[in-house]
Formats: sequence, C-alpha cells, structure tokens
Amino acid sequence: MRKILVIGIGAGDPDQLTLQAVKALRSTDVFFILDKGEVKSDLVQLRRDMLDAHIQEGTYRLVEARDPERDRAAGGAAYSPAVGDWRSARAEIYERLITDELGEDECGAFLVWGDPALYDSTLGILEEILERGAVAFSYDVVPGISSVSALVAKHRTGLNRVARPVQITTGRRLAEGFPEDVDDVVVMLDAHQTFRRYADQDIDIYWGAYIGTPDEILASGPIAEAAPRIELLRAEARERKGWIMDTYLLRRHPRD
Amino acid sequence: MRKILVIGIGAGDPDQLTLQAVKALRSTDVFFILDKGEVKSDLVQLRRDMLDAHIQEGTYRLVEARDPERDRAAGGAAYSPAVGDWRSARAEIYERLITDELGEDECGAFLVWGDPALYDSTLGILEEILERGAVAFSYDVVPGISSVSALVAKHRTGLNRVARPVQITTGRRLAEGFPEDVDDVVVMLDAHQTFRRYADQDIDIYWGAYIGTPDEILASGPIAEAAPRIELLRAEARERKGWIMDTYLLRRHPRD
Ligand SMILES: C[S@@+](CC[C@H](N)C(=O)[O-])C[C@H]1O[C@@H](n2cnc3c(N)ncnc32)[C@H](O)[C@@H]1O
Ligand SMILES: C[S@@+](CC[C@H](N)C(=O)[O-])C[C@H]1O[C@@H](n2cnc3c(N)ncnc32)[C@H](O)[C@@H]1O
Repeated sequence: MRKILVIGIGAGDPDQLTLQAVKALRSTDVFFILDKGEVKSDLVQLRRDMLDAHIQEGTYRLVEARDPERDRAAGGAAYSPAVGDWRSARAEIYERLITDELGEDECGAFLVWGDPALYDSTLGILEEILERGAVAFSYDVVPGISSVSALVAKHRTGLNRVARPVQITTGRRLAEGFPEDVDDVVVMLDAHQTFRRYADQDIDIYWGAYIGTPDEILASGPIAEAAPRIELLRAEARERKGWIMDTYLLRRHPRD
Repeated sequence: MRKILVIGIGAGDPDQLTLQAVKALRSTDVFFILDKGEVKSDLVQLRRDMLDAHIQEGTYRLVEARDPERDRAAGGAAYSPAVGDWRSARAEIYERLITDELGEDECGAFLVWGDPALYDSTLGILEEILERGAVAFSYDVVPGISSVSALVAKHRTGLNRVARPVQITTGRRLAEGFPEDVDDVVVMLDAHQTFRRYADQDIDIYWGAYIGTPDEILASGPIAEAAPRIELLRAEARERKGWIMDTYLLRRHPRD
C-alpha cells in the first residue's frame, strides 16, 4: 500500500526540524512540493535546501505542482474552481500526484509549513481523497514547530498566563470582536492589521514577521505605542519583499 | 555574563527534539534538572537519556534539585511555601542554582517538557529572578513540540477547523463551562476528566495519555460513546503507573 507522510517542517528556521521529521525525510521516496507562485518561491527554496541538507541526492524524487490557490489571485485558467471549491481542486491535484507519481510500495511526503495542525488544509485534503476512493494509502502526521510557538519563543514569553486559556484565531475573526472570556489571543492569517482596532485598549502586542528566516522582524509593547510602529515595519517589509507572513499575540490586561 | 537556555524537549518522544534543541544541548555547560518526586522519575530519566544520546559524557555537568511543588502533596518541610507562593519558592531555588552552580561565562539550561510556552512556569520564574536583581544573566527560549501538537498529530487531525479558532484551556476552566464562541477546545491539566460533563452534547473527543512515550494510549469518538471508554482506560493506566498525563481536544459540532 502507498504511504503518505505529512511532515511539519517548522515555520522558517531550518533548525526547527525535529529529529522525527529528519527521519521521515530520509524514509521518503517522493516529495510533493506545491508551489504557491513566484512571490513565495523563497519558501519553496527553503524546502529544497532542507532536502539538500538532510538527504543524499539521488535517493529521492521531487515532484512539483502548481497550487490552485495561486490562480485565484492570478485569475488563471488552468485550475479555476468556483469559490469554496479550492479544497476539491487541490484534492484533485493531490490525488493525481499520488496516483501517477507514487509507486504502490512507495512513501510520498508533503512538507507542511509550521505545524500541519494549524490552518493548513493538507490533512483535510487527504481525507477527501480517501473518501473519493479512487486511490488507497495510509498516512501519518509528523508535528512541527508552528509559527505560534516560534513567535512566543522569540519574544521569550508564554502563550497563556498562569492557569488561564489562550485562543488561536484569524484576522477575520478578530475583526468581529475580541474573543469572549479569554485575554490571550494569537492571530494568524491577518492581511489587514486588525490589531489596530484595539489600539485604545489595555493590551500588549507581541508581533513577528518572517519569524525564523533571515528577514525576521520582531516588535512588541503596549498596543497604543506599538501599533503604529508595527504598521510601518510591516508596510516597509511587504514593499521590499513583495509578500509578508506575520503573526501576533494580543495580551489583554484583566479588567479588574 | 551568564547565559540560560530554556529548551523545549517535546512531550515524550525523544525524536521530537528539534535540531535547534540538539545544538542548544551541545552548547550547554550545566543542566539543571528539577525532580518532581519519585512518581515522575520516568520523566527525569527521559531527560537523562536525551543527554546521553546527543552529548558526549564529561562535556557537561548535571545538577539535580527537588522541585518545591512536590512538597505540596507530600507535605514535606524542606520547601513548604504558602499556597500561591510556589513560584517564589521555585525562583529561590533556581536563583541559588544559577548563582552557585553556573560560572560567570557559562551556559546553563533548563529542559522543559513540551513547549516552554504552554502551562510552564520556567519563563515566569526567570523573569522573577531578574527582577530581584541578585544575579544577572541573559536567556533564550528554544520552542518545543507541545503535547497539544503531539496529540493531534497522533489523531491525524487539525487543531482548528477551516477559518475557525481553537482555544487551549485547563480542566478547571472547562469545569466552569464550555468556552464561548469557540467549538474546538484543547484541555490540559485536567485531573478530573471534566469532559464527562459534556457527554450529552454533540462533541467528538480526541484523547491521549503519555503521548509519545512507550505507554501512549489514544482514544477518540463521539463523546457519549468515548467518555466511558476513556474513563476506564485512564483509571487502569493511572493505577498501573501511579500517575498520568493526558490531554484532549473537544470538537463541538456547530449548532446550525
Ligand atoms: C496558512 S497559515 C499556516 C500556519 C502554519 N501551519 C504554522 O503552523 O505556522 C499561514 C499563517 O501562518 C503565520 N505564519 C507562518 N509562518 C510564519 C512566520 N515565519 N512568521 C510569521 N508568521 C508566520 C502567518 O500568520 C500566516 O498568515
Ligand atoms: C504543566 S503542563 C505542561 C505542558 C507542556 N509545556 C507542553 O507543551 O505539553 C502539563 C500538562 O500537559 C499535558 N501533557 C504533557 N505531556 C503530555 C503527554 N506526553 N501526553 C499527554 N498529555 C501531556 C497534560 O495535560 C498535563 O496535565
């Protein structure tokens, strides 16, 4: 039976690979690398460098494919599924890759940014392919250091405060309001710097962009003071590189 | 200046060490190992085994101390701080270790279970020591794979569902009610199997104990059916080993 490994590779620093991930890389016959388009080719390069660093050349095959998500922005034709159909479009591509490129007794791997458990569609897609039933395989997940863990490590702070909860959410959700009953909130996938809405509150922000990479930027402080600073840093970096990945923790001071 | 590394070592599987953590181990002169008492000596042994596996003997010193938390249960006298004073009691011990056992130009390390960012007091204690001002040092944090990441990887599921938030909380908090506005909740530090309170709801549970260790137990399913099964597994395991560490994800089905 075909085997698939979903390998978390950390969020930017190649040393964030676990020993388990390195072993998984070494047991892989075929790597599937999904390219999100040229702007993020740094991220594809980072994956290639990891393979070069840990596995002997010639012992594996590399199969690259274009991620359909890219075409949403580009308005491309090759894969232009209706909105809400992205996952199925991806499932089709992944299914084809597994069927055509992986031998019956081989092990294929998807290298997933950060931890496959956080805001990543790979696991859902594999389940969808299995449900379709056209190809059979077993699969395992290798956890990775998420950008959330990397963020707070760099800021040398915890995610939660003593005996209290922490919530991980998206920029879009945060725009609907500060989550109820929780004062420590990590925000991912925020293209709109939603933290600015809370700049008048008694909140500390711990922000990071391109964490773990040579472009890493960190900033923190009381939000009123830090927000404009982060806005500037973010705009400059985004201009310079053409894209940005950032994450932040909002730590609200208890109102008592 | 003295340097301290707070190194996340993963939640049980020695292969969950990152390459960064291995490098950090190798740059350490003195390891501080805090023993929580004989029942958890497996966990101290696991740390010793990690050092044996990755560093050459004779290149480092190992300093073991008794964790004051243990004395709460034992009612011991050596360190018996008033409730709420645990952190300060620990800070005193850590301060003494750093002052007495670490040379001015040396690097000391604390090996923290899982990810130092989640329900761990080491960072708070180091800050408290720095505030006291009796000893100066710089410190860095090496993120680790948390039991949360390990749990969901073993269950091959994500933490969040598409575009939705996830909350990480404690058993005590969960006893006060299911968190508002979030349907995916990870529960740690639960000595009372608080999930049983929600057994009549439309919730799936993904549970794991001693994850990553040879004693690992996993169970999952609709909570009504899975809860009694988990209760039994948990009681048997706890009886057998004398202690248990377990974590679970509750995934509530949307009410629409
Ligand atoms: C599709 S999600 C994938 C998250 C990933 N699975 C993880 O565990 O970090 C992408 C989001 O992760 C965050 N992110 C990923 N890598 C990052 C990095 N190196 N620095 C800052 N944020 C990062 C950003 O919030 C970005 O919008
Ligand atoms: C004091 S907290 C430390 C958490 C740790 N820093 C982490 O990142 O996993 C201890 C709690 O973590 C969870 N835990 C830690 N290791 C575990 C394991 N191997 N299996 C299951 N749960 C674990 C349990 O919920 C336990 O009550």
